[in-house]
Amino acid sequence: MKESELSKPNTTILKIGGSVITDKNGELAARTQVIDRLADETQRAGLKNLIIIHGGGSFGHPAAKEYALKEGLKNGNQLIGFAETHHFMTVLNGLVMDSLITHGVPAVSVTPSSCVTTENGRIRSFEDAPLRMLVKMGFLPVLYGDTVVDTQLCFTILSGDQLVSALALRFNAERIIMGVDVDGLYNADPKAEKSAKFSPHLTLSEVRKLKDNIAKPTASDVTGGMFGKITELLPVVEQGIPVSIVNATKPNYIYKALRGERTGGTSIEKE
Amino acid sequence: MKESELSKPNTTILKIGGSVITDKNGELAARTQVIDRLADETQRAGLKNLIIIHGGGSFGHPAAKEYALKEGLKNGNQLIGFAETHHFMTVLNGLVMDSLITHGVPAVSVTPSSCVTTENGRIRSFEDAPLRMLVKMGFLPVLYGDTVVDTQLCFTILSGDQLVSALALRFNAERIIMGVDVDGLYNADPKAEKSAKFSPHLTLSEVRKLKDNIAKPTASDVTGGMFGKITELLPVVEQGIPVSIVNATKPNYIYKALRGERTGGTSIEKE
Repeated sequence: MKESELSKPNTTILKIGGSVITDKNGELAARTQVIDRLADETQRAGLKNLIIIHGGGSFGHPAAKEYALKEGLKNGNQLIGFAETHHFMTVLNGLVMDSLITHGVPAVSVTPSSCVTTENGRIRSFEDAPLRMLVKMGFLPVLYGDTVVDTQLCFTILSGDQLVSALALRFNAERIIMGVDVDGLYNADPKAEKSAKFSPHLTLSEVRKLKDNIAKPTASDVTGGMFGKITELLPVVEQGIPVSIVNATKPNYIYKALRGERTGGTSIEKE
Repeated sequence: MKESELSKPNTTILKIGGSVITDKNGELAARTQVIDRLADETQRAGLKNLIIIHGGGSFGHPAAKEYALKEGLKNGNQLIGFAETHHFMTVLNGLVMDSLITHGVPAVSVTPSSCVTTENGRIRSFEDAPLRMLVKMGFLPVLYGDTVVDTQLCFTILSGDQLVSALALRFNAERIIMGVDVDGLYNADPKAEKSAKFSPHLTLSEVRKLKDNIAKPTASDVTGGMFGKITELLPVVEQGIPVSIVNATKPNYIYKALRGERTGGTSIEKE
């Protein structure tokens, strides 16, 4: 079988937030039962042409913040911090891979820092030939937020959310599922406005308004929280790729979302 | 600090054989004390512009052989074998990284399958921008033999030895240190010829003769054993890059080799 003989995929991109698979208040605190449940849901959904991207949670954010990695190279002490943060992310990724493979899913990790460079924090080059071939052959590639080299800053943090956006555009994805630890989006910040209502559906223009209204990321989230997610997703929705925000902490919600069923979350479409 | 301001390296490439850091007769049997000793030796040597590549041993070879991964995609059952083998390699690599970082070395893993494609088993493309930037910034990149996608075979095994050769040529390396579990090379196969003598020094033409004479790889070694090593190293020695074959199972031999001291192994030079 040659690469050229393999068919073109209609890709689904599934993001699993770091706050879903880790306890963000702990340190290197993986929720292994959640990881196993999500691996089982992924296996049962049996989707072709799926790419998973997961966040860092308590494996990525604490060390990244301690060493101020996002701001780039300022002093030599940060080198060990970069090394540690990348290593911790590979450990979390290893738990995810172990669970997927144990469930019989032919999942292959793709290491962002090995194939991506950024420029001032935005993806500059992305060698995606291995990734494309893995998808075509029927593997499930798994990527994650990672420490990366940067042509201006020397290094920085590449969020899983930026990867979601970049891959959705590169693969002209059919849809994006954002697995998070909340039910979805409100039409305003529910902590600031009591009249805020849950939004089962949002259009591009409604999301733009919401973005101006939403809480800025908390200090512990180096990659931007829900505000960062929406910022990354806007260009994708503009391209006509629909996004479903799904509570991945609830059993079977990711399974249903993968199967194309409603889960009571928020769907975002261009119009 | 911008990337362009960083100086050009004179790279040393250190290969650590899978038979050094794992028990090849076991299954997923890491020699963690050896890994820790080598991390300590690496830290003490304090070398700049070093790249480490390690083999798979009992983490890579058994599954790769069971699923006949080197021969490429023949049937769908191999997909899970590819996924497993890559995952096992990341687990072994994780032990190496954990030890290096614990010893204070800013080591960063670079995943071959994420940045390399092969064609009929030979490297076809290698996105080495992240790797080059890591070296320039003072990180210690660590690569390993891995499962990779192949434009003709769909996938195959990329040996750590092929990576050594490719990186030595790409980085115009100053020297290569091959850490193995024997003392070095003989002028003939010591198992076949009683008169075989240990060779402290070999020239390119002597190595070519030896290659015709040496034992072919055993079935358990999917990537070619000493025969494969010599085959990969010939073009590098032709380019004038010297190779030291060093017994990495003996304490301080790798430390000495990194420091440029003699270790009683075999050195190979063009003339």
